[in-house]
Amino acid sequence: MLGQLAAHARWSPLTRILVVGADAAGMSAAHTALRAADAAGRDVEITVLEATGHTSYSACGIPYWIAGDVPSGDDLVARTAAEHRSAGIDLRLGARAVAVDTERRRVRFEQDGTAGEAEYDELVLATGAAPIIPDWARAADGGLVDGVHPVKSLDDGELWTGLLERAGEVGGPSRAVVVGGGYIGVEMAEALIRRGLSATLVTRGRVMSSLDEDLGAEIEDALVAAGVDLRTGRTIDGLETTGGPGDRVSGVVTDTGERLGADVVVLAIGVEPATRLGGEAGLPLGEAGGYLPDPAGRIAPGIWAAGDCCEVEHRLTGRRAFLPLGTHANKLGRVVGDNLLGGDRRFGGALGTAITRFVAGGVHLEIARTGLSSDQAAEAGYDVAALVTTGTTISGYMPEAEVIHTKVLGDRATRRLLGVQIVGGPGSAKRVDAAAAALWGGLTVDDLAGMDLAYAPPFATVWDALQIAARRLADRL
Amino acid sequence: MLGQLAAHARWSPLTRILVVGADAAGMSAAHTALRAADAAGRDVEITVLEATGHTSYSACGIPYWIAGDVPSGDDLVARTAAEHRSAGIDLRLGARAVAVDTERRRVRFEQDGTAGEAEYDELVLATGAAPIIPDWARAADGGLVDGVHPVKSLDDGELWTGLLERAGEVGGPSRAVVVGGGYIGVEMAEALIRRGLSATLVTRGRVMSSLDEDLGAEIEDALVAAGVDLRTGRTIDGLETTGGPGDRVSGVVTDTGERLGADVVVLAIGVEPATRLGGEAGLPLGEAGGYLPDPAGRIAPGIWAAGDCCEVEHRLTGRRAFLPLGTHANKLGRVVGDNLLGGDRRFGGALGTAITRFVAGGVHLEIARTGLSSDQAAEAGYDVAALVTTGTTISGYMPEAEVIHTKVLGDRATRRLLGVQIVGGPGSAKRVDAAAAALWGGLTVDDLAGMDLAYAPPFATVWDALQIAARRLADRL
Repeated sequence: MLGQLAAHARWSPLTRILVVGADAAGMSAAHTALRAADAAGRDVEITVLEATGHTSYSACGIPYWIAGDVPSGDDLVARTAAEHRSAGIDLRLGARAVAVDTERRRVRFEQDGTAGEAEYDELVLATGAAPIIPDWARAADGGLVDGVHPVKSLDDGELWTGLLERAGEVGGPSRAVVVGGGYIGVEMAEALIRRGLSATLVTRGRVMSSLDEDLGAEIEDALVAAGVDLRTGRTIDGLETTGGPGDRVSGVVTDTGERLGADVVVLAIGVEPATRLGGEAGLPLGEAGGYLPDPAGRIAPGIWAAGDCCEVEHRLTGRRAFLPLGTHANKLGRVVGDNLLGGDRRFGGALGTAITRFVAGGVHLEIARTGLSSDQAAEAGYDVAALVTTGTTISGYMPEAEVIHTKVLGDRATRRLLGVQIVGGPGSAKRVDAAAAALWGGLTVDDLAGMDLAYAPPFATVWDALQIAARRLADRL
Repeated sequence: MLGQLAAHARWSPLTRILVVGADAAGMSAAHTALRAADAAGRDVEITVLEATGHTSYSACGIPYWIAGDVPSGDDLVARTAAEHRSAGIDLRLGARAVAVDTERRRVRFEQDGTAGEAEYDELVLATGAAPIIPDWARAADGGLVDGVHPVKSLDDGELWTGLLERAGEVGGPSRAVVVGGGYIGVEMAEALIRRGLSATLVTRGRVMSSLDEDLGAEIEDALVAAGVDLRTGRTIDGLETTGGPGDRVSGVVTDTGERLGADVVVLAIGVEPATRLGGEAGLPLGEAGGYLPDPAGRIAPGIWAAGDCCEVEHRLTGRRAFLPLGTHANKLGRVVGDNLLGGDRRFGGALGTAITRFVAGGVHLEIARTGLSSDQAAEAGYDVAALVTTGTTISGYMPEAEVIHTKVLGDRATRRLLGVQIVGGPGSAKRVDAAAAALWGGLTVDDLAGMDLAYAPPFATVWDALQIAARRLADRL
């Protein structure tokens, strides 16, 4: 009996893993599975289908490439196709998956105009998210009007660096309109101003609406101080174009009828999960249209999903949230990679942590948030108390001290920490991580106020700004 | 009966609070008690005896005053004597407490050469710590040899700015020896090099021995690269002086007989709790000679203690630790202030979090630690596993990316996080706070690796350096 078990344990059939999408989530899963197979002495064959010609790049880095911080799009590639292949992954670029047959475990795809079919034992859907393209941005032929473009892929980055090549020269682009006031919108406003353009930012709601209104107002003030022409609460009705041959954008018209001249228009309205493939195969989708992986990353027998095509579980609410970020893509990708061959890893959930900055026009503002906003907390049923505290990033007598605004949110019933938002000068934002760790552990506002955070005059005040804010809220809970 | 109880509750006698020591801990306790009394409608009389002429100043800021970052010692004063007094505190400067009569609840003190006595209902001992002065630093009259001095009080700072006034001029001081390789030693090496002196650092053990040896070696390399002449594993046998009138230091002699020329010598050997007052009154002291407040801050009926004169409870070991830092002084001071009138606040313990930097001679190094070192963890009975991971502070393609070394320590038996140490370039050290928060919550190495920390290219890598390090250790636990 023992001999039989041992023989069974040694029996290792070939497992065919098929990954659709070769960016962070897909390639994390692929490499992790490769390592897990290696460690377990298992035989795997890993094939990756990627519709575009690019793999494993930092989409978050594109605004900094456009701004001029990063010399080339190649610098944003974490691992090249050649590196993936030399690790033993059968990576097929330009191969667009078009249908999944979940019964027969096959994926149909198109490559170089011909149709192919790939069999799998385990399928990983990592198709990411696609930028939302409003109808007004399209030309008669269905393509984008020249000069109007999103900022998502390396191809987008290439296009933008081309569009801005002559920025600052006579006849070059000088006026930009950014549509969308979220992370990408703010980062692109920075990039465009740093490239010498004027920037008008139009947003349907507030700027950075993932933060509460009071801190959002600080961000809006900073943008205005840096010269951004702000139009909040506005939508775009349509474009104006130059007409004639070489027709391209010359302006946008808002819902109030205002005409804003524009040589380039950034589409930063958001992204949506690219889940047509699984949706058509009958796989369940969430409210935002994303796949719904369980904590192991599984969405159906033999089918897994990771990355921006998913709605992940929010650790504080237990509900699904569409949070298309590289952090979750990498973490969930790794979870899937480990579990494909029978591992037992779990994705711990998301806290909604996010960070960015706006550094342009003499302004240096850092922005971060974690956990629930006031609205989210109320909606989740918490009796939320919140307070903004203004202090300094480091000891006030140090020459580098900067203003920092910290908002702490807690639950009156349990004193539990619910969220933290930070807006301030250099050195402000990354301290949100201490709050994220506290949220991860389910700690209270009192814990955050009392914990042993690091202090020395060049790094913090003796009560860290985060703790002063937590202490003040704790006194009022 | 109910009427009697109510009458009793309304009966509010005057509570006489006597605080000895007017720095962070004492004045935190005093102001917190004042606010608590105010809120509760209680009648208090708060008297503070302070032996020196200074109150509520940042001792941690003195090296930056000496370095030239801070224009004046006044800038280091958080609250002046006048501000304390106008808040209603009877602050007596130059009043040295000499004896406590715990039976009769009285403290004898000396002020302006005359003896006084203060009665109390509640006594707060906040006498701080005193720099260790080795015998070799003393002149025949028992005072310090000219040019040899510690860095602890505002008077010390004043003396140092005087000593260095002519630094860089002909005949001015040009050679410094720093004795001690801890936080103050490293900070003073920075200050002296920035003031144009050469610096030799002599330390009995390693530099920054609160970090493990591997990361300590990174720090030593950086000091040497910045031009610090390092002598580790050496003690001082004696001084050489100029002799004659105006006798002052001209060098030190180490235990190997090496003579090191010195115009100034920094005493940064450490501090010891100033607990003679309580010790003579029979109050219990710990192994390091500090008071042993319970979590409420009490050391005996009617007697409380806070600040650098205390050994605080280490949250991870449950044992006492002498950690003379402003963070604990402020937090425990506040706990005491709330409890003096019957509050129920608790000090949550220390994690041993600490941070500093060395920025001089073309080097910019940040240093931080939290939790237990490898030796401390082994001594506390943990089966410790630890790993150093080298990465970058932010996305490698960003121009500001810097090298960061992160050491994560975990317990093999429980996978619990035990400590984190960080040495690296700008932006490295303060991320120790996320680890401190994780330690505070008793989280695992897996939690640290999996939690939702903030990422954007100018702030972190997509897996934060801390998480790459935690993940690598988790894989080996």
